Amino acid sequence: MMAIDRASLIPALKNVATRLRIDSVRATSEAGSGHPTSCMSMAELTAALFFAEMRFDPNDPKNPESDRFVLSKGHAAPILYSAWAETGAFDRAELMKLREIGSDLEGHPTPRLPFVDVATGSLGQGICAAIGTALNARRIKSDYRTYVLLGDGESAEGSVWEAANVAALDKLDNLCGITDVNALGQSRPTMWEHDMGQFERRWKAFGWHAIVIDGHDLSQILDAFAEAKRTTGQPTMILARTLKGKGVSFVEGKGGWHGRPFKKGEELDSALAELERQFVHETESGPAANLAGKIPKPASKPRAVVTPKSVAAPAYSLGDLVATREAYGTALAKLADADPRVVALDADVKNSTFSDRFEKVAPERFYQNFIAEQVMVGAAMGLAARGAIPFPSTFACFLSRAADFVRMAAISNVGIKLAGSHAGVSIGEDGPSQMALEDLAMYRAEPNYTVLYPSDAVSAERLLVLMAYHPGPAYMRTSRPKTPVIYTNDDTFTIGGLKVLRESTADVAVVIGAGITVFEALKAYDQLKASGTAIRVIDLYSVAPVDRAALVAAGRATGGHLITVEDHYAAGGIGDAVAEAVADAGLTVHRLAVREIPRSGKPEELVERFGISAKHIVDAVRLNK
Amino acid sequence: MMAIDRASLIPALKNVATRLRIDSVRATSEAGSGHPTSCMSMAELTAALFFAEMRFDPNDPKNPESDRFVLSKGHAAPILYSAWAETGAFDRAELMKLREIGSDLEGHPTPRLPFVDVATGSLGQGICAAIGTALNARRIKSDYRTYVLLGDGESAEGSVWEAANVAALDKLDNLCGITDVNALGQSRPTMWEHDMGQFERRWKAFGWHAIVIDGHDLSQILDAFAEAKRTTGQPTMILARTLKGKGVSFVEGKGGWHGRPFKKGEELDSALAELERQFVHETESGPAANLAGKIPKPASKPRAVVTPKSVAAPAYSLGDLVATREAYGTALAKLADADPRVVALDADVKNSTFSDRFEKVAPERFYQNFIAEQVMVGAAMGLAARGAIPFPSTFACFLSRAADFVRMAAISNVGIKLAGSHAGVSIGEDGPSQMALEDLAMYRAEPNYTVLYPSDAVSAERLLVLMAYHPGPAYMRTSRPKTPVIYTNDDTFTIGGLKVLRESTADVAVVIGAGITVFEALKAYDQLKASGTAIRVIDLYSVAPVDRAALVAAGRATGGHLITVEDHYAAGGIGDAVAEAVADAGLTVHRLAVREIPRSGKPEELVERFGISAKHIVDAVRLNK
Repeated sequence: MMAIDRASLIPALKNVATRLRIDSVRATSEAGSGHPTSCMSMAELTAALFFAEMRFDPNDPKNPESDRFVLSKGHAAPILYSAWAETGAFDRAELMKLREIGSDLEGHPTPRLPFVDVATGSLGQGICAAIGTALNARRIKSDYRTYVLLGDGESAEGSVWEAANVAALDKLDNLCGITDVNALGQSRPTMWEHDMGQFERRWKAFGWHAIVIDGHDLSQILDAFAEAKRTTGQPTMILARTLKGKGVSFVEGKGGWHGRPFKKGEELDSALAELERQFVHETESGPAANLAGKIPKPASKPRAVVTPKSVAAPAYSLGDLVATREAYGTALAKLADADPRVVALDADVKNSTFSDRFEKVAPERFYQNFIAEQVMVGAAMGLAARGAIPFPSTFACFLSRAADFVRMAAISNVGIKLAGSHAGVSIGEDGPSQMALEDLAMYRAEPNYTVLYPSDAVSAERLLVLMAYHPGPAYMRTSRPKTPVIYTNDDTFTIGGLKVLRESTADVAVVIGAGITVFEALKAYDQLKASGTAIRVIDLYSVAPVDRAALVAAGRATGGHLITVEDHYAAGGIGDAVAEAVADAGLTVHRLAVREIPRSGKPEELVERFGISAKHIVDAVRLNK
Repeated sequence: MMAIDRASLIPALKNVATRLRIDSVRATSEAGSGHPTSCMSMAELTAALFFAEMRFDPNDPKNPESDRFVLSKGHAAPILYSAWAETGAFDRAELMKLREIGSDLEGHPTPRLPFVDVATGSLGQGICAAIGTALNARRIKSDYRTYVLLGDGESAEGSVWEAANVAALDKLDNLCGITDVNALGQSRPTMWEHDMGQFERRWKAFGWHAIVIDGHDLSQILDAFAEAKRTTGQPTMILARTLKGKGVSFVEGKGGWHGRPFKKGEELDSALAELERQFVHETESGPAANLAGKIPKPASKPRAVVTPKSVAAPAYSLGDLVATREAYGTALAKLADADPRVVALDADVKNSTFSDRFEKVAPERFYQNFIAEQVMVGAAMGLAARGAIPFPSTFACFLSRAADFVRMAAISNVGIKLAGSHAGVSIGEDGPSQMALEDLAMYRAEPNYTVLYPSDAVSAERLLVLMAYHPGPAYMRTSRPKTPVIYTNDDTFTIGGLKVLRESTADVAVVIGAGITVFEALKAYDQLKASGTAIRVIDLYSVAPVDRAALVAAGRATGGHLITVEDHYAAGGIGDAVAEAVADAGLTVHRLAVREIPRSGKPEELVERFGISAKHIVDAVRLNK
């Protein structure tokens, strides 16, 4: 393909930028909502990126060798859509359906569109996902580059600085950030307005190569991209001074225009007329219409289809004492060996979550984020979007640091496989700050998360493998204390399943536990049996989805008495999951759960004090009978 | 009080440091768990802070003029407790009950202890809370200073950098940070180990005065504190190079000792013997035993008791169309006028949440955090701990960015008054990234949060005032669309209450809505009435706690058919709240809720498509009847 000389390229790109502005303005006016001025500040940056910098195939956006673009400032979605329309990926007329219920051109980008890797629109997340796509290039040994465009207001998010640290530590020179410094936030000027030194000092201090440019000067933009490409051993951040609303004089650089489309009629007409006048005469060698045809295609590499090996079965003996968090680590290491797509991410707790066993097997696929949970989960989202099977893990309570990423992963429907250890009061002496007691509520709330909660080492290993290959996001909750192995190594488990551990025709109640409370239920069974009372005991290892039919059947067989017991707060956990499942059958549930803020103490003391021990189960059965 | 000369002070402080080390080592060995080596690195820093720098009264730790100390690296709790024991605040023998269920000396600090403002132990939060206590000094015009001690590993948390920005922007020269750079994390060396320039460059770039010192050199420590006090217009960060486990040669600076107490017996004895040898001969003028008696007391200022004015009643007419988010802003402005303790915190969305109305009334109590939700909520925690009544607000979905702070606020039981706007699919075209659909699950999960969800402007105003004066943390959910006023200005509301909007003796079902679904329920009522079917309609404006008795009574009066309808995902919201409340009465609930990831569209289209419209209610009533 013949290269275009700079003198011809620039006017052609300028015209693309003008067209992107016009499209963004028209689409948002048609929709009656959206952020045209946030698009207008980044029009030259977008034109240069799509039509003079990135290598990709407009007709095959998911190509594994394609450069990636993440729009971290997701509210500028219209210009992203306009750019893809300009490449020819879809008909420009579609742009006028922006934000309609029947169109995938949503208010903020989602992976309903084939060229969007992860949903953005919650600020400070795109750059974390971009780290994931950049790490993936390294994983698959591809030379594709990742570009991520941020807003300046967005730079206040802590997750941006978590990402800055990790990208520098990982020396991600295949990652290029661009910050659109338009100086205007939603409600007021941004923190540092147009003081470019504030940005430059920060990014340099965080170990990035930083380049300050005029974001409307195409020559400076092209030079900056070239400089970024030449920079080795560190990521580059291009800091582009821009004007919000650039191109329309009555909004350019003015407050009060955030998230406000031009009113149809005089206001819109006047804006469009001014933009139209900005088309420049093009030289012969660089007509804009041809730029789309000149986009360099990604390298075409033969890639072997990954055929994962089968994962070695668990190897325990009944009664062995093994914490589920440890079995998680064991299984993760086996999976590392079986499937090169599996990666693990840590936040400096690998020796507590046992993900260090993965690191020993596959250090090159083990990504250390230090104590920064947002970038850990965000990077996992980017990795998952590019075909990896990522397992980010830390203490379950600290995953809540990334709750908004968990939410956006649901919207993206990306297959991140989260694991949270140290659930519940059963961690003991460390106290409430280290106990996850609301994690099941967080994951269950999302409509497409699989939530698993093994009680023993065998189920932990089996469920981990199921989770790896189940589509979509998933969460596994593991426990700190050692618990006895109760399943045989060839026992089978399913997502959406449960295990009935004790049953008889004389059962007067069904007790449903998961994790450590399974053992409290088994103790209660023994105590009640000694006094002549039989109960059914269920291990609800799959918390979402639950096996509704089996729960209803168990409830009906036992006089309608369902008792749940969980090392979790009362709202949003296992009790609620079971209650909703059996509601339509007219069954109700008695919930044993933690109902106040706990404190430090020995695990067994806390299980007793906070109402989820065998004794409380026995009392509940006797009360219900 | 006679000042001690430096030559006498230093050996005395050195002995305090040694005693703090010994106490931390002994207490953790006795407990059998904990983090002695993380305490040992900060012994000189702690000794200097408590016995040569801070002004406070050991017997009156809550004194409003006292300097504040926040231990952001909460796992070093034993040395915090040892320091307070050393001041004479409690008997040193108590230290040996560390982590026992009967002691308030928990594994990580909580406000069960009178000298702890906010619980720490989830890293990166203490510095955000410290901003709150520093802002509070400004609010009450006190010259108390706030000190916050961080770990180096902790510095990877994005929330630390959110805090760094906000403190610099607010020119908090009454805030002094100390980073204990001991170079060892939990599982491995920290990101930058002992490269002090990495820290210095970052803090300077973020606008702080940074001082690098040897954290075991008391003279350098005292000089740094003096320099921090002299520094005006910006906060100071003291970057202290230390050794983890300092003082015991076989652990000093060595990996593998994080969170590991010395084993009783030879290991402990040898550590203690080495520490004992570090006591230095003291000069006459500075015996350590006297330092506690020489702690400068806080200024004693006469402070008038705040008597809030009554808040003006709502002033609407029935049928007025007003969004609850707007009524929130109106009421918040009235409250600003009525009570000087009320403060508001924003994350650059004040024109969407209407908190800008507060800013107009009380700009000096309006704290702008830009797009940084973690520091916004964390600062609110610090403010609340010091007597302010803080209202942090943003879009409900973006408050999930601070989910871990919400959790720690529950543990702290501090009275933060969170408000989240733009709940649910009813926001429309912006799409799922801007919709909160799991927020009720998040707040309901915490056992001590009040959760309110007004449907109209009158209830929004009334509930906001109730929330302000109700003890403990609270959350109000508001909506984007305008809804008609259905209550009269003198209607009364209670936390834990509900309103029955339609009822008759012929009701065949009870429909329970909140927020925008109240109006869908009223529409359903009208449609069903036209076909001769009567239903009861309840506005469940108090989601936590709920009025169990009224729900059970309504369910029983309508043949046991309870139907909930909510602009929220199915798990963890109103359906679950009602179901648990009525479970013991044997009643079950049919839940209408959003059950898949939504998309962009018009509000009414989305309410219809995702199953929570009047039509779906009518269908559910007909099905149940």
